[in-house]
Amino acid sequence: MEYTRPLARLIEYFQKLPSIGPKTAQRLALHILKTDKSEVENFAQAMIEAKSTIKYCSICFNISSVDPCEICSSTSRTKELVCVVAEAKDLIAIEKTNEYQGLYHVLGGLISPIDGIGPEDIKVKELLERVHKDDIKEVILALNPSVEGEATSLYLSKLLKPFGIKVSRIAYGIPLGSELEYTDELTLIRALETRLEM
Amino acid sequence: MEYTRPLARLIEYFQKLPSIGPKTAQRLALHILKTDKSEVENFAQAMIEAKSTIKYCSICFNISSVDPCEICSSTSRTKELVCVVAEAKDLIAIEKTNEYQGLYHVLGGLISPIDGIGPEDIKVKELLERVHKDDIKEVILALNPSVEGEATSLYLSKLLKPFGIKVSRIAYGIPLGSELEYTDELTLIRALETRLEM
Repeated sequence: MEYTRPLARLIEYFQKLPSIGPKTAQRLALHILKTDKSEVENFAQAMIEAKSTIKYCSICFNISSVDPCEICSSTSRTKELVCVVAEAKDLIAIEKTNEYQGLYHVLGGLISPIDGIGPEDIKVKELLERVHKDDIKEVILALNPSVEGEATSLYLSKLLKPFGIKVSRIAYGIPLGSELEYTDELTLIRALETRLEM
Repeated sequence: MEYTRPLARLIEYFQKLPSIGPKTAQRLALHILKTDKSEVENFAQAMIEAKSTIKYCSICFNISSVDPCEICSSTSRTKELVCVVAEAKDLIAIEKTNEYQGLYHVLGGLISPIDGIGPEDIKVKELLERVHKDDIKEVILALNPSVEGEATSLYLSKLLKPFGIKVSRIAYGIPLGSELEYTDELTLIRALETRLEM
């Protein structure tokens, strides 16, 4: 049996989303067909609206409805501390901890030569300008512990150190609540290498 | 940090989809924000179009762009055999085997008192009418081996048997390629109970 063309097209679009395979895409599309027409229209409208009204903070490049964003314009935050993240979702994850009180800088990606993403494709220049212009004392690199994350961290720390500021990166190691026994070898090696004196 | 309202709304809509939790919904919504505007509009359009152009076969209730559907109007298929499935996706799964040559009947759900779904909410009456009117010799029940699936199978078989036709259900047992050792107990019990003489 062939899908009808509109259904096949919808499945295709769902499949383009991250972590959605062909089976899930089919299930989601069939779910849309079973959903009330008005609900489907609202969903489609929400998608267009989110995309068309999306704004980015001109300072830190976080998603925001105002410019500068709430974080950059907050008076209660430490302006001397800037946490560099790859994507807005990483910023959201850190904000959820309610612990960090500094500012952010969203790169909008990581350096990845294999995907053709160089330093000029992410907000590196803008970060250097902030460090140059503003009174920043420390830059915390909070990038994923992947090949691209590590390469980007290394690249940024080399560029940032000449400014005479502190450059740090978040700790990689055994996650809290997990067990040594089940920790993968690379994480264990990292945790041993970056051990702290007590 | 709060999401902007349009983004929060889009996350909500993604979260209503089956098997999409809050984290995935956030990732999908953020992906939409990073996607080209025209691509997002096409996706939204595809959703509305699939929903508005969707048609169901008036005989078997399969998704179809023509009525009756290709399967019901096919001259090469055995009209005496009707396979009853819960949803169009189950029909698609069976069609992909390229083995079954009979017709289908898509119930549009399973009887589930806990969700308030009774026999009148799915296409039971229409199945009985087909059996009454058409020259059907066998009805194969191909419903999921869940509580609802089994209850619906039992209910249907009681209603169908008085018509003097054969009523069968697909076999539940050890899936091919799997190992006995890793098969769950309920499946093993079922496989033993429904053993076949060799």
